[in-house]
Amino acid sequence: MPEAILNDISHRRYNPLRGSWLLVSPHRTKRPWQGQQESPSKITLPEYDPACYLCPGNKRAQGDTNPKYVEPFVFVNDYSAVKESQAEYKPEASKDLSSLLLRADPVTGRCYVITFSPSHNLTLADLTPAQILPVVQMWTQIYAAHLSPSNPLSKIEVKETQKLPLSPPSSQLRWMQIFENKGAAMGCSNPHPHGQIWTTTGLPEEPAEELIQLQKYRKENGRSLLADYVKVEMEKEERIVFQNKGFLVVVPWWATWPFEVMIISKEHRRALVDFSEEEKLGFAEAVAEVTRRYDNLFETSFPYSSGIHQAPLEGTEEEIESSHFHMHFYPPLLRSATVRKFLVGYELMAEPQRDITPEQAAKRLRDDCGGELYRKHL
Amino acid sequence: MPEAILNDISHRRYNPLRGSWLLVSPHRTKRPWQGQQESPSKITLPEYDPACYLCPGNKRAQGDTNPKYVEPFVFVNDYSAVKESQAEYKPEASKDLSSLLLRADPVTGRCYVITFSPSHNLTLADLTPAQILPVVQMWTQIYAAHLSPSNPLSKIEVKETQKLPLSPPSSQLRWMQIFENKGAAMGCSNPHPHGQIWTTTGLPEEPAEELIQLQKYRKENGRSLLADYVKVEMEKEERIVFQNKGFLVVVPWWATWPFEVMIISKEHRRALVDFSEEEKLGFAEAVAEVTRRYDNLFETSFPYSSGIHQAPLEGTEEEIESSHFHMHFYPPLLRSATVRKFLVGYELMAEPQRDITPEQAAKRLRDDCGGELYRKHL
Ligand SMILES: O=P(O)(O)O[C@H]1O[C@H](CO)[C@@H](O)[C@H](O)[C@H]1O
Ligand SMILES: O=P(O)(O)O[C@H]1O[C@H](CO)[C@@H](O)[C@H](O)[C@H]1O
Repeated sequence: MPEAILNDISHRRYNPLRGSWLLVSPHRTKRPWQGQQESPSKITLPEYDPACYLCPGNKRAQGDTNPKYVEPFVFVNDYSAVKESQAEYKPEASKDLSSLLLRADPVTGRCYVITFSPSHNLTLADLTPAQILPVVQMWTQIYAAHLSPSNPLSKIEVKETQKLPLSPPSSQLRWMQIFENKGAAMGCSNPHPHGQIWTTTGLPEEPAEELIQLQKYRKENGRSLLADYVKVEMEKEERIVFQNKGFLVVVPWWATWPFEVMIISKEHRRALVDFSEEEKLGFAEAVAEVTRRYDNLFETSFPYSSGIHQAPLEGTEEEIESSHFHMHFYPPLLRSATVRKFLVGYELMAEPQRDITPEQAAKRLRDDCGGELYRKHL
Repeated sequence: MPEAILNDISHRRYNPLRGSWLLVSPHRTKRPWQGQQESPSKITLPEYDPACYLCPGNKRAQGDTNPKYVEPFVFVNDYSAVKESQAEYKPEASKDLSSLLLRADPVTGRCYVITFSPSHNLTLADLTPAQILPVVQMWTQIYAAHLSPSNPLSKIEVKETQKLPLSPPSSQLRWMQIFENKGAAMGCSNPHPHGQIWTTTGLPEEPAEELIQLQKYRKENGRSLLADYVKVEMEKEERIVFQNKGFLVVVPWWATWPFEVMIISKEHRRALVDFSEEEKLGFAEAVAEVTRRYDNLFETSFPYSSGIHQAPLEGTEEEIESSHFHMHFYPPLLRSATVRKFLVGYELMAEPQRDITPEQAAKRLRDDCGGELYRKHL
């Protein structure tokens, strides 16, 4: 690239999706590391663990028993961060200093846990695209089931692959956050392959910031920011990790985490419900590629947090039409299975900072990490 | 408080200093924890460690030798994230998509390391206010030495308590970030008590966001946001941890980290150089109180990242006059010396989320953690 000089100098990059900057210090990886080491994940888990609250047929902490499920299985989180009903709270609308500086709003919603497989010892990296497809289908069904009737996306018919045991939510929700915390380093307390879905009556910070930028770009340029970004990346070919017909896997120009990637739909798709069945399989393949390449990078079960950003459940037409489906992966490991990047003092107080360049990270994930999962030939 | 109901319901709180929201789920602490445990810090370090690159008289990684210092000692970081000179980079100013979506700016600057004590086995929590005072004086001197001549703060005379071995920076810097990463859990790789100072030609994200909010508040209300906030907190008496004549230590209404605190100057002070010698000692006392109370909370050497926000080195009059000196402490521990809060999936993808309320955290730090450092009577 003409910007090869960026490999050697400190610089800031702009994240147009959040409207924020980060600091890149490529030369900093030379620094010796004497700090905390992560414990590499145990790789010899049993296929079924009688003590696991997610395994089929087991009893959960609050007393419910899981069915002997074979497909992805969803239930309401026993320790939900938000609930459907709670005592009412109406902040006083006075005009004094404290109502200016001590502001709070109640939030209700519903939180789900979704298992990706009945097997305790598998991860998304172990699954084939065809095995991930039912997870994508279930995410789609759950998303569809929570759409506001006023949302044009609610008119799209969605294939029911499984009967969902979900009662309709009691008040209209604004946002659904689908995410996964994988690995102890990312605060995951149970290795059974699973993700979470938190829905809330309010629009959270991150999607709110992205929606502002996406709408602004659409207004100024008449096109989708991420469709344009896909075009630029496919031309440059410097940060691409993998692609198929429908999806691009890229280490974004503005990546903060060392091996951060984004899966972006190449065409403008507002949400999961916009995908054809073929596109769902293509998306499942992209997820399989990311997670397998991650595991191959340091030959370890790679920790990360991932999450899907798409159209809000309820929103203005502008918000819904500006949304462009994508999935973020934020993995902490930097140099090996045990040495992570800490986003701490400077990052928290001043600005996110990264050491290797996104181009270097993409090259490794693209050129060195394809092929079979390393565990297969151990 | 009339808002006692907030102890039992999920709600969002607004952070007027950043202009952002966070989710509070007080009931969530009941959830059992089976995830990662932090290793409690070793407490039997030697007073001098021949292998430590920060101990007096020792050789550093890049070949320099530390003097046999007795006062706080500062030097340029051997692995600086930004440097004073580097190859030039001028992004092309074209009008195509890639210059819209792949934006970068060069950053130069200088990074320092500052030791707080010659003793390898002490931390700020072990020091008296009088022993922390020289650290505050050094921070002040370094800040003053980097002020732009156009900054009105550069006219204030600063007491030289130590000759600083600092050459003047070669280009004018915009921001100085003083911070500390303490403990392995916060990415600190050397237990020798030390902090860092990174200075840059650009204004980083966090102070930029705060400056926007501070200026907006001043414009709309004619007063300092944080002076008003101090007033509200002193009236409410619900989140105060400690106070003396010049400073308030508070768990902010909008705290994200479980035991997050802020030290705020009660009167409007723009920066360290605005402090009288008496105020410097008062600030040192506040730092001593925070760090000792932290250690007493779980009877462990408490990890945290801390950082000072004050006026920019160079800025508009509005920016400088709206700045209000404060120090943030972001500590990760939640329930014990080994169980931390993870800000991961939902937090990264959607919005910061906390479990205990700021009021509960403040009460514990205020009522249960005063008195002598727990290690003293072990
Ligand atoms: O500079 P140190 O102490 O080696 O490194 C530590 O602090 C830096 C600034 O917050 C971070 O970027 C690093 O990830 C962290 O390990
Ligand atoms: O809900 P879990 O998996 O028990 O908890 C994990 O994910 C949550 C959502 O990102 C975080 O708030 C917790 O800190 C983390 O430990």
